[in-house]
Amino acid sequence: MAEVLEGSELKVIAFDVFGTVVDWHSGIAAEAERLLPGIDGGAFALAWRAGYQPAMKGVMERLAAGEGGFTLLDELHMGILGDVLRDFGVADLDADTKRELNRAWHRLPAWPDAVEGLARLKRRYTICTLSNGNIGLLTEMAKRAGLPWDCVLSAEVFKAYKPDPRTYLGVAAVFDVTPGQVMLAAAHHDDLAAARACGLRTGYIERPLEFGPGRPKDVSPQPDNTLHARDIGALADLLGC
Amino acid sequence: MAEVLEGSELKVIAFDVFGTVVDWHSGIAAEAERLLPGIDGGAFALAWRAGYQPAMKGVMERLAAGEGGFTLLDELHMGILGDVLRDFGVADLDADTKRELNRAWHRLPAWPDAVEGLARLKRRYTICTLSNGNIGLLTEMAKRAGLPWDCVLSAEVFKAYKPDPRTYLGVAAVFDVTPGQVMLAAAHHDDLAAARACGLRTGYIERPLEFGPGRPKDVSPQPDNTLHARDIGALADLLGC
Repeated sequence: MAEVLEGSELKVIAFDVFGTVVDWHSGIAAEAERLLPGIDGGAFALAWRAGYQPAMKGVMERLAAGEGGFTLLDELHMGILGDVLRDFGVADLDADTKRELNRAWHRLPAWPDAVEGLARLKRRYTICTLSNGNIGLLTEMAKRAGLPWDCVLSAEVFKAYKPDPRTYLGVAAVFDVTPGQVMLAAAHHDDLAAARACGLRTGYIERPLEFGPGRPKDVSPQPDNTLHARDIGALADLLGC
Repeated sequence: MAEVLEGSELKVIAFDVFGTVVDWHSGIAAEAERLLPGIDGGAFALAWRAGYQPAMKGVMERLAAGEGGFTLLDELHMGILGDVLRDFGVADLDADTKRELNRAWHRLPAWPDAVEGLARLKRRYTICTLSNGNIGLLTEMAKRAGLPWDCVLSAEVFKAYKPDPRTYLGVAAVFDVTPGQVMLAAAHHDDLAAARACGLRTGYIERPLEFGPGRPKDVSPQPDNTLHARDIGALADLLGC
């Protein structure tokens, strides 16, 4: 793969987290079933995650219009959770259980290849998160799952959310390297496209079961990505780590 | 030591870095002697560090007056370095060597007890940096020295420098805990006093040789600190880790 990285020595790999490094569908489904007996955990997880894009769009619009400050993902998740609980007929959940359920996003399990794959990449590259998740969430998740980040970067550091260019270019600035010396690794083509537009290299990570076994995802390669890898171990293989 | 932590379960230990976790005097002295043959490395290190407080004071005053943006510690160090090189009669140093010398702050050695002490504390607490050093500097330092931070926090995250309350309170906010659930560990009483004024617990770490063997430091206990430890291993002992 030396040819695709030609002209710019790769220094930093920034990882999208939800879906790419951790399995939010299984994690949320299991915690929902534990805390809300009788619920369909998989459906609950999909409903909660489906609320993310519209809620984030609203936050970004208000931020751009100067009408609101920065919102932590924990707060965003809590707002969506209220609606999802209502839709699932459990609107009367007590505050402590609701808070514990919201914290399920801090306790998501890593995909089975993630910890070892990251450890291999870490030997040669600086590896960090680049997620719209807040720092506290990402740190607790890493501590529990054993994700060996060199550094936890987040929308919270840049006060801008992906796909804002300030996040991708912010990674390069933090490490004092060129955008071409940074790769974004993600399971989502829109995230990768936004990073590519900023000059970053891109590594697509297949996660066919991101939305659960009932909703397999198209993981076909897209030619604009620098690398295409089955999982994080395969990314380490491609990079010769 | 349970009694001193009564009433608030400690969750997070934030560490000052320069002098507390890493030995800037030896590290800078050695790199100065390597890159500037014939120089007195120890004196060079002291002169460079002595420029820090006045330079940081200027940056904080300009920031408070709205006259300047946030300055990375790498830039601050580079500015001071120009003056120190002139004072040591090497003002004509080429740009590449000057940059490499400035990066010596990224390559500082950990105090011998730091890596193991932090690893012990990490098993029970979230451990992070809280330094005026920039994120890239702290990350490269940790990677080289093997410092096992859960998270790299910095003035760069809070867009405010210690001893601004936003930094100490920012740590509590990031982890969604009360100030009393955070301890600042530092080798400097002024840093600890500012943290204490924000409601944080404080752990003093003795570093009698911070300024080199020729300038031993008074490391007497001050009664206002929650804990007083010879080094980071001793802090882990006191906390029962």
